[in-house]
Amino acid sequence: MNDLQIIENALYGYIPKGLKYEKNLVDSIEYSLKAGGKRIRPKLVLEFSRLCGGSDKSALPFACAIEMIHTYSLIHDDLPCMDNDDMRRGKPSNHKVFGEDIALLAGDALQSLAFDVMSQSSTLENASAEACVRCINILSSYCGTVGMVGGQVIDLENENKIADLSSVTECNRKKTGALIKAACEMGCVCAGADEEKILAARKFGENIGIAFQIVDDILDVTSSDEELGKPVGSDIDNNKSTYVSLLGVDECKKRVDKLTKDAIDALDCFDGNTSSLKQLALNLSNRKN
Amino acid sequence: MNDLQIIENALYGYIPKGLKYEKNLVDSIEYSLKAGGKRIRPKLVLEFSRLCGGSDKSALPFACAIEMIHTYSLIHDDLPCMDNDDMRRGKPSNHKVFGEDIALLAGDALQSLAFDVMSQSSTLENASAEACVRCINILSSYCGTVGMVGGQVIDLENENKIADLSSVTECNRKKTGALIKAACEMGCVCAGADEEKILAARKFGENIGIAFQIVDDILDVTSSDEELGKPVGSDIDNNKSTYVSLLGVDECKKRVDKLTKDAIDALDCFDGNTSSLKQLALNLSNRKN
Repeated sequence: MNDLQIIENALYGYIPKGLKYEKNLVDSIEYSLKAGGKRIRPKLVLEFSRLCGGSDKSALPFACAIEMIHTYSLIHDDLPCMDNDDMRRGKPSNHKVFGEDIALLAGDALQSLAFDVMSQSSTLENASAEACVRCINILSSYCGTVGMVGGQVIDLENENKIADLSSVTECNRKKTGALIKAACEMGCVCAGADEEKILAARKFGENIGIAFQIVDDILDVTSSDEELGKPVGSDIDNNKSTYVSLLGVDECKKRVDKLTKDAIDALDCFDGNTSSLKQLALNLSNRKN
Repeated sequence: MNDLQIIENALYGYIPKGLKYEKNLVDSIEYSLKAGGKRIRPKLVLEFSRLCGGSDKSALPFACAIEMIHTYSLIHDDLPCMDNDDMRRGKPSNHKVFGEDIALLAGDALQSLAFDVMSQSSTLENASAEACVRCINILSSYCGTVGMVGGQVIDLENENKIADLSSVTECNRKKTGALIKAACEMGCVCAGADEEKILAARKFGENIGIAFQIVDDILDVTSSDEELGKPVGSDIDNNKSTYVSLLGVDECKKRVDKLTKDAIDALDCFDGNTSSLKQLALNLSNRKN
């Protein structure tokens, strides 16, 4: 099995089964978990865990948990009261298929499931209770007010006005960067790595996280609907200040290159083979969707 | 300080501070956390922890976490795509004050904060990592698909049709019962109690949890708007099958008495003073709002 299969096998294994009355909810969760996506965050957990000598078995619950958080955030993001997007990854968004009520609850349940998965007895068979608690703390803080959700709020507040670079940076750092950073740190923690390595992983994650959002902003103006799997130009339609609107495409591309280089440099403190993480950072900076 | 003050002091201490761009989000979280309520769930955590010899200091993070989950569920429940309630506890509901987008995100952030609080280093100073992980697992599973959110889905599906007693029971057991059960179990777990006591607490919680929802259904037909702090008759307006519509008020009152008695009987296995838990069970069964 390749990594994508390893991740998706484990992820789909956590979809609730055997419930008598909650079919719609389970179908809705399954729909979004199986809607594809790059699986970057779980991949980062696995790669950093391997780099620190951890087994895939011990890392997979944490890898799945972060993908569940990412998936819940996409479902809620697409809701009419948020971005009101009808399409996601070339398919109707969750609420267009299951209704807003079920979509809202599926997102809520996915967030709970993420913490459930990290605290199950089967997870504790392969990771210490201390490592579990620390991973839970990383993920819960980076996905909440000081992380992902905080970033979404800054994003909302920046709509329909000219935002400055400082608030756009803070938004990106939190909205997209926080979860990517969390993935890198969690991979090290669940493998029992020392603080120096955890710090280096955080630096790697912080840099590729910001680069990731800048690339998103660039693709929104340079890509096509087909290539991107969702309508391009949504930032312009929403009158949103982005890195691109503030700095232009060329300066953005320069920043992506610099951030990617800084990320790769941060890997120097690891003894093992860092080639797949380097490649991952480069692929993300050159991606087309 | 009385218990209510102890709980609210600790709870409000967890409201995020010092964020530059997220004022609306923090205000929205604060608005709902400070909107009052009976604080039954955190009170149950404290009482069971004390009964098992635990300190309030070690129990309070778990008590606050469960109140955050309860609060997030109320914010999401009131949204237009769910129950569409404009009022909650005699005040405008969260989305009427902050908008649907911020209300949605405040609920999301409160769920994250609950898990953050249970996994913080300050929490680990007074509780073992094993106890933290187990409490996190209890709360995350009881608030997700097999618990609270699952119950809300059954509730939605039962609208506008005649539901049978079995699905109404399953709904109540999950929608309201699961979190109350979680509170009782968590109180024992964070105090390091043995499995027999955890099981007894679960039984107590299960019984008062179902009784609690039946009382809610009774009050919806027998109370007044002023007394209840929200519009009565909403179940009838929504064509909802409830215990009351299926069994009548008298049979419901009998069931509440029986469930309350069974709950109190379950406390027999504890050595300590169970009088406040007994009183709590009786107060819940006789409450007027």
